[in-house]
Amino acid sequence: MMSEIARGLEGVKFAQTRLSKVDGQAGQLTIAGYLLEALAPNACFEEVVFLLWNDRLPTPAELKRLRSEMASQRYLPPAAVAVLREAAARKLPMMDGLRMGVDTIGLCGGEPHPAGAVDVGCGVAIVAHVATLAAAYARLLQGQTPIDPRPDLGHAANYLYMLSGQEPHAEAARALETYLNTVVDHGMNASTFTARVITSTRSDMVSAIVGAIGALKGPLHGGAPGPALDMVFEIQARAAQSGASVADEADRWVRETVASGGRIMGFGHRVYKVRDPRADVLGQAAERMFAVTGESRLYEDARVVEGVALRVLEELKPGRNLKTNVEFYTALVLHGIGLEVDMFTPTFAVGRVGGWTAHVLEQVREDRLIRPDAEYVGAAGRAWVSPEQR
Amino acid sequence: MMSEIARGLEGVKFAQTRLSKVDGQAGQLTIAGYLLEALAPNACFEEVVFLLWNDRLPTPAELKRLRSEMASQRYLPPAAVAVLREAAARKLPMMDGLRMGVDTIGLCGGEPHPAGAVDVGCGVAIVAHVATLAAAYARLLQGQTPIDPRPDLGHAANYLYMLSGQEPHAEAARALETYLNTVVDHGMNASTFTARVITSTRSDMVSAIVGAIGALKGPLHGGAPGPALDMVFEIQARAAQSGASVADEADRWVRETVASGGRIMGFGHRVYKVRDPRADVLGQAAERMFAVTGESRLYEDARVVEGVALRVLEELKPGRNLKTNVEFYTALVLHGIGLEVDMFTPTFAVGRVGGWTAHVLEQVREDRLIRPDAEYVGAAGRAWVSPEQR
Repeated sequence: MMSEIARGLEGVKFAQTRLSKVDGQAGQLTIAGYLLEALAPNACFEEVVFLLWNDRLPTPAELKRLRSEMASQRYLPPAAVAVLREAAARKLPMMDGLRMGVDTIGLCGGEPHPAGAVDVGCGVAIVAHVATLAAAYARLLQGQTPIDPRPDLGHAANYLYMLSGQEPHAEAARALETYLNTVVDHGMNASTFTARVITSTRSDMVSAIVGAIGALKGPLHGGAPGPALDMVFEIQARAAQSGASVADEADRWVRETVASGGRIMGFGHRVYKVRDPRADVLGQAAERMFAVTGESRLYEDARVVEGVALRVLEELKPGRNLKTNVEFYTALVLHGIGLEVDMFTPTFAVGRVGGWTAHVLEQVREDRLIRPDAEYVGAAGRAWVSPEQR
Repeated sequence: MMSEIARGLEGVKFAQTRLSKVDGQAGQLTIAGYLLEALAPNACFEEVVFLLWNDRLPTPAELKRLRSEMASQRYLPPAAVAVLREAAARKLPMMDGLRMGVDTIGLCGGEPHPAGAVDVGCGVAIVAHVATLAAAYARLLQGQTPIDPRPDLGHAANYLYMLSGQEPHAEAARALETYLNTVVDHGMNASTFTARVITSTRSDMVSAIVGAIGALKGPLHGGAPGPALDMVFEIQARAAQSGASVADEADRWVRETVASGGRIMGFGHRVYKVRDPRADVLGQAAERMFAVTGESRLYEDARVVEGVALRVLEELKPGRNLKTNVEFYTALVLHGIGLEVDMFTPTFAVGRVGGWTAHVLEQVREDRLIRPDAEYVGAAGRAWVSPEQR
């Protein structure tokens, strides 16, 4: 009997998890028991990572200890920096540099020594390093020198500091913190699943995370939140040129794009049909940040474009229920804190690595090899013929 | 309604493949249409890799071109060597060095440039590099200088040359060739599946292979063929000490081990219940090699131990049908060609990378994101509490 093929394993459950739950019907994302809205805007990133690793929030003393441990693991081994320099000289993309860099974590001198280990100490080192590596490689790609981390700053603020050399505005750091918390985990997905498959062979955490970064690099996964922002910029430019309002130009733009069969980036989601809770959380983070960082015009125009897009999409595609998704506000928040578009996916990794490491620890407890099947549809009974007779 | 959980995805088919078929009931392994017995002892490794990539054997001209392309891709970028030196200074395990090395392939100067690419040219570079990296890192770990590859040698012979600096005996190279062909692909397994999941996001081939190496590193996958050989050595030593025959000592050893609840390494397989076709192929390769390389005593004793183990296991565990598996003869062949036990898994990777690259190319054609589901069993409705109140 031939069993059916579950293409892409869609809808096939392979394990249980206590880490996050995506409820598309209700428009809810639960992170280790907390609704995203309750957790992301309030917690610092280290708190959320602790929560995922331990299934509870840390006490003040535990949080202080974790922040200090993570700060002590921010330094790169010289061999990693040398690899990044070579990669930058060849203009390799951000995610390649990040993957190569993470792969060399075993060359760090300090304890805990992550090569071969799978424990929380290893998770601390990896989560800390991903941020340093992303910042260092971004600077090297621009011909700049990497900036040493500052142990007195939190994880999010230090990441921005290592990118620019400036201590970030508190609201920018808070917005990044909220973003990192928002993307820290999202049910099962290709990168998280990759980390779990590698872990399931009883391999080590570095191997698992390197694999996950490779998966996140793929455009079907890491996504491209850039285009949502490009749309807003283009509509602003058209309005400036035509003298029409942003709302009118947005209306025209959405109708033109839909008529020509194009997709409006930043709207609609495979799972979240009612609302994307991540968009709400990031929208509020953006509002708060733009109010103080002085770029509130972009924020206001983006909200206008969003409102028009939702109205026109509902009119042109009734019943499709295309809501603002995480990409729209990701682009706005990350642009607002000063990140270039090529930093969007690496910064996604800076957050998601918290979830990856937690899934590795959960898979270790599961301790079951993940190995599906495939159906052979190739040739059979071919007879060997030596090269001369071919 | 709660759908069932397919733990470890066992028996779940997620795709079709033309690359290999494991038929446990019949005791057959088909590689792209050829029974293993027809292919592995006759083909050179480059031929088998061409077969997997193209679903047909190469003409003499095509084979010549592939061998020459692969030979030209054997050289390591200096940054990779620097990383390996650092890793060796820290005594990182073979598979860590191999994974780090493969991750830096994008730093190679030559064309084709594999970073970001997914094509046969990239496959050539990766298959070539894995052998060079394994040999170079093995030497560095022993405090020796890496040996430059020789472009005039085939892939298998050159691998042995880079390990020892000596041109290998033709029968040793042939035995290695047969081993690499035997392990080049084996249906779906955790490392191959990892490569396919990473590829399914439209990531690149280097990312996929680095992930696969990370999965192969795990002891549940890469396995440990060492213990099967240790058993033979131990029985030989006992016989030398007691004056009894190897057969008598083997009989005693197997009974003692089974009585104490131990497992006889090298016998029994999860899928192959009738026979393991890989054991047969490698057994013949071992016989042929040991006949000329002068270590035929080890081979003969191993055959005696095998015969006794099969007989005693059938007596003690009737109906379990524990047959000699691939590990038993892998250990014998790889030891016979001069490899230390810590080179067994890296040498497995030198062969399996042929299958991995072919699966990556097949998954690219499938072009479907692999993303299963998990069941959330964690907490719900937790209320945020600030650190001070915890």
